Amino acid sequence: MKILSREVLKEIENKLSYYMDSEVEFILKIGNYILESGGKRLRPVLVLTFSKLLKGENEERDFPIAVAMEYLHTASLLHDDVVDGADKRRGKPSANRVFGNDTTVLTGDYMYANALYLFSIYGDIDMIKNVSDAVKRMSEGQLLELKKIGDIDIKEEDYFKILEGKTAVLFGSCCYVGTALGDGTQEQKISAYNYGLSIGLAFQLIDDLLDYVSNEKKLGKPVCNDLREGKVTYPLLSVLNDLTEEEKEFVKKVLREINPDKEHINKVKDMVKSKGGFEKTLIKAKEFVNTAVKELENFPDSEYLKELEDLAKYIVEREF
Amino acid sequence: MKILSREVLKEIENKLSYYMDSEVEFILKIGNYILESGGKRLRPVLVLTFSKLLKGENEERDFPIAVAMEYLHTASLLHDDVVDGADKRRGKPSANRVFGNDTTVLTGDYMYANALYLFSIYGDIDMIKNVSDAVKRMSEGQLLELKKIGDIDIKEEDYFKILEGKTAVLFGSCCYVGTALGDGTQEQKISAYNYGLSIGLAFQLIDDLLDYVSNEKKLGKPVCNDLREGKVTYPLLSVLNDLTEEEKEFVKKVLREINPDKEHINKVKDMVKSKGGFEKTLIKAKEFVNTAVKELENFPDSEYLKELEDLAKYIVEREF
Repeated sequence: MKILSREVLKEIENKLSYYMDSEVEFILKIGNYILESGGKRLRPVLVLTFSKLLKGENEERDFPIAVAMEYLHTASLLHDDVVDGADKRRGKPSANRVFGNDTTVLTGDYMYANALYLFSIYGDIDMIKNVSDAVKRMSEGQLLELKKIGDIDIKEEDYFKILEGKTAVLFGSCCYVGTALGDGTQEQKISAYNYGLSIGLAFQLIDDLLDYVSNEKKLGKPVCNDLREGKVTYPLLSVLNDLTEEEKEFVKKVLREINPDKEHINKVKDMVKSKGGFEKTLIKAKEFVNTAVKELENFPDSEYLKELEDLAKYIVEREF
Repeated sequence: MKILSREVLKEIENKLSYYMDSEVEFILKIGNYILESGGKRLRPVLVLTFSKLLKGENEERDFPIAVAMEYLHTASLLHDDVVDGADKRRGKPSANRVFGNDTTVLTGDYMYANALYLFSIYGDIDMIKNVSDAVKRMSEGQLLELKKIGDIDIKEEDYFKILEGKTAVLFGSCCYVGTALGDGTQEQKISAYNYGLSIGLAFQLIDDLLDYVSNEKKLGKPVCNDLREGKVTYPLLSVLNDLTEEEKEFVKKVLREINPDKEHINKVKDMVKSKGGFEKTLIKAKEFVNTAVKELENFPDSEYLKELEDLAKYIVEREF
């Protein structure tokens, strides 16, 4: 895809270090440590693409806003690593392991603040409202996820609130501010937000599915890691009502085990598979992709529109 | 002081819970746990007073902005407790001990985001620029403090950067946004900021002095706690050049001890005392108070102006 081309990504990388300014040298060091460990830069790409979609090309002010969204994402990853006590991130030792929890928390705070600061210079109050609301909901989602660990009675509503917080609201916000940068109408901004929210939900559903069906090498962590951590995700959630009381009790026990037996994990996985949990998840993800694509009808036709459509579809076609 | 009267504080308490909204119930629970543990609410008072100083009275929109500043302060305390691995805060078990590091970090994030969200609704872009810059410098200051632990060669410039981050920039920002709410001129906003910055620096200098000269009961922690933690503060910093090489080596050793001997601590304290470090700190604090009072000349005379002058003076007259 052109919007994910090497040139676009290279420009994003340049701007990521350019706008990461601090008088305190080691903030740059830590910031760059995590920024350099890569990632797909989907968030800045979404900002830049929605803006281009409406203006034909990007202006200089689009870039600080695009990278601000990546800073927000990075800040949340840094705090997430502390919350999870993670050892690795993108194949490298996680920042908390290298620099300590204290430094990692504060660098995250710095990146949040720097992002909002960039918005106050290059953005406007409406964007800030949307973005700060997204950050609120991100932390709410993560808190809810913590709270629901080991809880087999989690409601679908809460599961989706967690998904929104983990990925979707920030995706939505990227599309919203990109449209705002492109001087889109209020309706277009909302459509863009819904597109981002929907592809974010699809993205995370597929992530939750891959956690069951992929392999350790591709995942970079053991299969069924969510289950091991006591997290009930959609593949399991979608078949809970089809389980016998006995099966349910078994799953409950496994969710609460600190170090669950591999055979137990496989038994739950087989239950989910045999009840159709994998297909249900894929169908749900595709529904969100369709919703996302429909929202694009509110934008003028262009090569970028086609690419945003492809991006949405690509999400459910990621390798299994 | 009227600006610290029971009525004003009660109204602040009410608004603190009113604007702390979340669909996620336990965010309110944790938020209230820390908000209810009290504190002087100096930050909202500064916002409200500067606004009243110019408008005669507060409007409804002043309150969400005033409490947003307290949320920012609370968020930074929450993260600070995780960073320090604190056990207590204001006499109660600290949030990290009660709810865990993970929940504490994320609730802090929520409070930061909620504060900025309130600014996007009730404030304006200029306030957000000032406030997000303050939050940047807060995390920079705290990071710098971590980095300089055990470092006897800390520069005065870095020490003051730490002080600014710990207290002063947020005080400054409170006065800035209060003046903005009162439709003050750009010059008045800058004067207000400098007033807040200066009283914040004076406040923290006195804190650093009290750490040497107060007693365990009043401090709620052992005397010379900073020294025990390897922190070089102004009383020591101001006399470093007057120490012999041998004395300096001794201080260096004590700063790096994990569990310093009480006698060693007392020896350093005596050095600081005999070289006049306590007086020097008090003089420095008074200089900042004078600077602060001078900034008030840019405001119309009123009962509130007098109270802001008293507030500045009160800071160095806190009980020793």
